[in-house]
Amino acid sequence: MRIVVPAGGIGGARFLRGLKEALGIRAGSDGDESTITVIGNTGDDITLFGLRVCPDLDTVMYTLGGGVNESQGWGRADETFTVKEELAAYGMQPTWFGLGDRDVATHIVRAQMMAAGYPLSAITQALCDRWRPGVRLLPMTDDRVETHVVVDEGDGPRAIHFQEWWVRHRAALPAQRIVGVGAEDAEPAPGVLEAIESADVVLLPPSNPVVSIGSILGVPGIRAAMGAATVVGVSPIIGGAPVRGMADACLAAIGVETTARAVAEHYGADLLDGWLVDEADDGVRAEGIEVRSRPLYMSDIGATADIARAALDLATELKGRTR
Amino acid sequence: MRIVVPAGGIGGARFLRGLKEALGIRAGSDGDESTITVIGNTGDDITLFGLRVCPDLDTVMYTLGGGVNESQGWGRADETFTVKEELAAYGMQPTWFGLGDRDVATHIVRAQMMAAGYPLSAITQALCDRWRPGVRLLPMTDDRVETHVVVDEGDGPRAIHFQEWWVRHRAALPAQRIVGVGAEDAEPAPGVLEAIESADVVLLPPSNPVVSIGSILGVPGIRAAMGAATVVGVSPIIGGAPVRGMADACLAAIGVETTARAVAEHYGADLLDGWLVDEADDGVRAEGIEVRSRPLYMSDIGATADIARAALDLATELKGRTR
Repeated sequence: MRIVVPAGGIGGARFLRGLKEALGIRAGSDGDESTITVIGNTGDDITLFGLRVCPDLDTVMYTLGGGVNESQGWGRADETFTVKEELAAYGMQPTWFGLGDRDVATHIVRAQMMAAGYPLSAITQALCDRWRPGVRLLPMTDDRVETHVVVDEGDGPRAIHFQEWWVRHRAALPAQRIVGVGAEDAEPAPGVLEAIESADVVLLPPSNPVVSIGSILGVPGIRAAMGAATVVGVSPIIGGAPVRGMADACLAAIGVETTARAVAEHYGADLLDGWLVDEADDGVRAEGIEVRSRPLYMSDIGATADIARAALDLATELKGRTR
Repeated sequence: MRIVVPAGGIGGARFLRGLKEALGIRAGSDGDESTITVIGNTGDDITLFGLRVCPDLDTVMYTLGGGVNESQGWGRADETFTVKEELAAYGMQPTWFGLGDRDVATHIVRAQMMAAGYPLSAITQALCDRWRPGVRLLPMTDDRVETHVVVDEGDGPRAIHFQEWWVRHRAALPAQRIVGVGAEDAEPAPGVLEAIESADVVLLPPSNPVVSIGSILGVPGIRAAMGAATVVGVSPIIGGAPVRGMADACLAAIGVETTARAVAEHYGADLLDGWLVDEADDGVRAEGIEVRSRPLYMSDIGATADIARAALDLATELKGRTR
């Protein structure tokens, strides 16, 4: 079975861990990389201190490779912050981004390979040689796409990097618009379209529908390729609130209600075949989309594996129906 | 009084600390930067993992700014090595260079400023804004000069970076030649020639005469400018052996004996006016150079201050004589 999963950070990574569990792929193992292809969001990427930071790719890599800070959901376990403190002592800006020492090494490797001319997809593969995430992890694009957020603090609109809005301002500044700078001219990374085209199913994890999944779908060619596949999504909204994170602030910026139904309709029936909502949203309907309800809290790996199984079952059922 | 001190790493930094003590400039203070100008060796500089490492500039800066690892003589106090361990876990080479986490932050700042187009002299000044070494620290040049060592392990001569020879091989591979790659075309950094020309005295600390002082003198214009000044040197050789480090291996490579006299003659009477040797070398003579003997072990700051005072006294005496 070939499964493609476009993924953001924490939500995507945790869903993937459950999916691996459901398929019997051990954490940290090589896995059968032909089974799961992850298309990682790179819209959150940022250059800090000359280093290239790819938060979502790294969260997936660390989580599936057994190196993540479990309670935090991102960054490395047993992390220290000496480099960050020293940079601050030199007066370097910004100070609001939590660059840990272990994490810094990843960004040094990436920046050095970038300077040597390697594309992000090749760099990601090289980093995964260490982490063995048990999936094939591809960036959505090798081109530079950066999500910027248009805010207005009373002195006119200005665009700030997504990370500044998300991490520094905790998404508390109302967003007028969210823009994928460079998205129009980006091309899917090598292997992305091929993976989608040969997939038995595409699963949308409960990642942020705007800045994670939306960013991936914004790379020309990816959404169209998925439209031809069987796609089942897992709602990131339960009972009118995001499961975690601040997806509501992102949805508000694009004029979409924070409800399981509104997100399904935002994705659209041309993309989604099936949609899993939580039991709290039982009875939700979305035209042209098969909606099922079941417990959606990813409280542990077992519960997450159950969600993944339900998504796979629904996909299998829907594929049988269209044949 | 205006003093210029060309300096390498540990020996130069410790001598400078004694000189500051002799002049009453407190460690870590701003000092009167017009008093002491340090011309730092940059021939040992190396690019590692995309970061620019300047071991001698940093040793001077950390030592005079109160941040050095005292027992080691270089690197930061309370250092950790998480980044280095993580880079090794990614299979990155080389693994033989001791990059500490605190130190890494310095190199990140430097690399970022270099990428932004700042010359090394401006970067060094920016780093010193934090460290307040109490001296004006100038790199010998803003151009890239790298000391390479020609070795032959039986399969023909090859040139390796000085750091590889020094740190990785502990200078144990016989050096056939020592070459300052880029030196011929280098220009003194802004302020270097002006500082020498307006100096009351130039003091050569007991730094390595080949790869530290020799590297600085190898930048076109610097040696000639010093020739017109009153120059007093402190012998790095006591009783036929280097005070510390592996200067003998470097001297052998250029065909100079490891004696206080041979080093004085290598510098030459056109450069040196006075030469301090240790009491163990009492009686040493060098034609055209005023030689004095006194205890030269820099065992603590007080003893080092005494050496600095003796060098200043000899310089004052020699200036009076030539007037």
